Amino acid sequence: MALKERQTVADIGEFGLIERFAARLGAPPEGETWAGDDSAVLRAPGSTLLYTTDLLIEAIDFDMGYASGADIGWKALAVNVSDIAAMGGRPHHAVVGLGLTADCPLDTADRILDGLLSAASRWGVQLVGGDISSASALVLYVALIGVAEAEPIRRSGARPGDAICVTGVLGGAAGGLALLRAGAAVEEAARRRLVARQLRPEARLEEGRRLAALGATAMIDVSDGLIGDLVHLLDASELGCSVVPEAVPVDPDLVPLREVLDPLEAALTGGEDFELLFTLAEDTVQRARESLAELGTPVTRIGATQEGSRRLLGDGPLDAAGEGGWDHLRTR
Amino acid sequence: MALKERQTVADIGEFGLIERFAARLGAPPEGETWAGDDSAVLRAPGSTLLYTTDLLIEAIDFDMGYASGADIGWKALAVNVSDIAAMGGRPHHAVVGLGLTADCPLDTADRILDGLLSAASRWGVQLVGGDISSASALVLYVALIGVAEAEPIRRSGARPGDAICVTGVLGGAAGGLALLRAGAAVEEAARRRLVARQLRPEARLEEGRRLAALGATAMIDVSDGLIGDLVHLLDASELGCSVVPEAVPVDPDLVPLREVLDPLEAALTGGEDFELLFTLAEDTVQRARESLAELGTPVTRIGATQEGSRRLLGDGPLDAAGEGGWDHLRTR
Repeated sequence: MALKERQTVADIGEFGLIERFAARLGAPPEGETWAGDDSAVLRAPGSTLLYTTDLLIEAIDFDMGYASGADIGWKALAVNVSDIAAMGGRPHHAVVGLGLTADCPLDTADRILDGLLSAASRWGVQLVGGDISSASALVLYVALIGVAEAEPIRRSGARPGDAICVTGVLGGAAGGLALLRAGAAVEEAARRRLVARQLRPEARLEEGRRLAALGATAMIDVSDGLIGDLVHLLDASELGCSVVPEAVPVDPDLVPLREVLDPLEAALTGGEDFELLFTLAEDTVQRARESLAELGTPVTRIGATQEGSRRLLGDGPLDAAGEGGWDHLRTR
Repeated sequence: MALKERQTVADIGEFGLIERFAARLGAPPEGETWAGDDSAVLRAPGSTLLYTTDLLIEAIDFDMGYASGADIGWKALAVNVSDIAAMGGRPHHAVVGLGLTADCPLDTADRILDGLLSAASRWGVQLVGGDISSASALVLYVALIGVAEAEPIRRSGARPGDAICVTGVLGGAAGGLALLRAGAAVEEAARRRLVARQLRPEARLEEGRRLAALGATAMIDVSDGLIGDLVHLLDASELGCSVVPEAVPVDPDLVPLREVLDPLEAALTGGEDFELLFTLAEDTVQRARESLAELGTPVTRIGATQEGSRRLLGDGPLDAAGEGGWDHLRTR
């Protein structure tokens, strides 16, 4: 008896796969149409829409040697939800694009959808359609429509003298990546937490909404690295800053990884932690801390904005410290 | 003196390229934010949204041996506009994702944006943001939000006894692809028209809106091939049909290509013509013809729907004739 060969996506074809995926999206409410037509038909979730997209490509943004289909699906949605979170909004409807090699196991495609649907369920997102193509490497993107119920928190709204704060702890995603790539002697629970930060990032959605309600003046998610993203926020707000390196909340799980990577450097430039970096009036920091403590999320004040172009990290220039940050086209 | 090497996208980096692109999007109206934040902020264009996406991948959906950057950018937007047209809607806001090899000439990236912006201007679409990644082959997608001012025309609304009609002429995009791939002795003007059908497709946007207003019962754009797309429409409407092959409007420019491809077969299964295939009451066909004649677009009745599961193309089964249609994961 020959072993049954593993079924590939080519065996069921583009339209078979679309039908298989569409069947798992659930039933749309009256008046809406999701997959199965030229475009989805949706009720607008509000009068002010948020709109974002992120693209993940195999061997660039993830490695199928260590990321499962479900990890990739989860992350593709999470990073988009994080963008909506950083505006203080709420995500609603997503379309998904998937480029697959013809020999991709059908099981892998199913697991990618599993991951997308788990993340969608986690953050109240509805997948409403998409596109499938063949490709020479796995390509996955999500485009996400959200809604802003109040004024969205832009990067450009910081005022001189605002506190600069960040949620959670930083550097864990970089630590997880180092573990996946090189390995290191780390206690199992810490290993699991670090790897999850890399493969299964959380979007700080409720945190973003609370910070918006508390009057955060500017906000961005930490995707490229703390320093790089802070520079984006300061550039948009046309401000300087003074940041205290000792105040930066380094992920405690990085301590046993010191042989492999510098914990503070990972926290400053590692990227992909998807914490929220935000500014707000100094006299509101304590209230933000208390509000997010209810969600189990620490808030740390790492410095303050200031008029002018001086940007300091301790005694040195802040921008120079961010040069290790992620640039898709430059970092090889 | 050494020749200056051609500048690549890696020379200016992801953030340089984002800034370069963002500068060309124009200025958003009061209250909107486009590129440059975590997500775009938009006013909802209406209460019923249309939402679609299409992904194009190098060597699968286009070949950079014959398609310029501007061609690829144009087509990526046009195919999405066509999806909105097939609902009878109007396109509004698009995000764009671009995966580039690090050695991609900066000029190619600029030309892709040229093509996107030309098509956006042609159909009143605003590009509002996107994402850039590195990739091992060029990847380009658009996700497009449109608006339905009246009830969207779905694939599922056809009634038994409706006329089946199609706009324009068919097979030209397949003819253009054959010319680009193999060449053939064709008069220059015809060659130009066929190649344009493949590389610079038109979306039948105003046609779709007029057909919706005239009471089209179901509509789909011809992207996979006439037969394949008709089967999608009939499946969604749970109907049979009788189609007259002699009535199918074959692109007249295909006649001199007879040595290379069968014109009727190209019209039936060629795909990518982006004409509109629709059903409507028999007594409205003449009005549709007159209305679209004002736009210079012919309307041809190719058959009728009928109760039950019989689907005929002349004397043979319709579905079998569509097996040459495009399936991304099966067609190699």
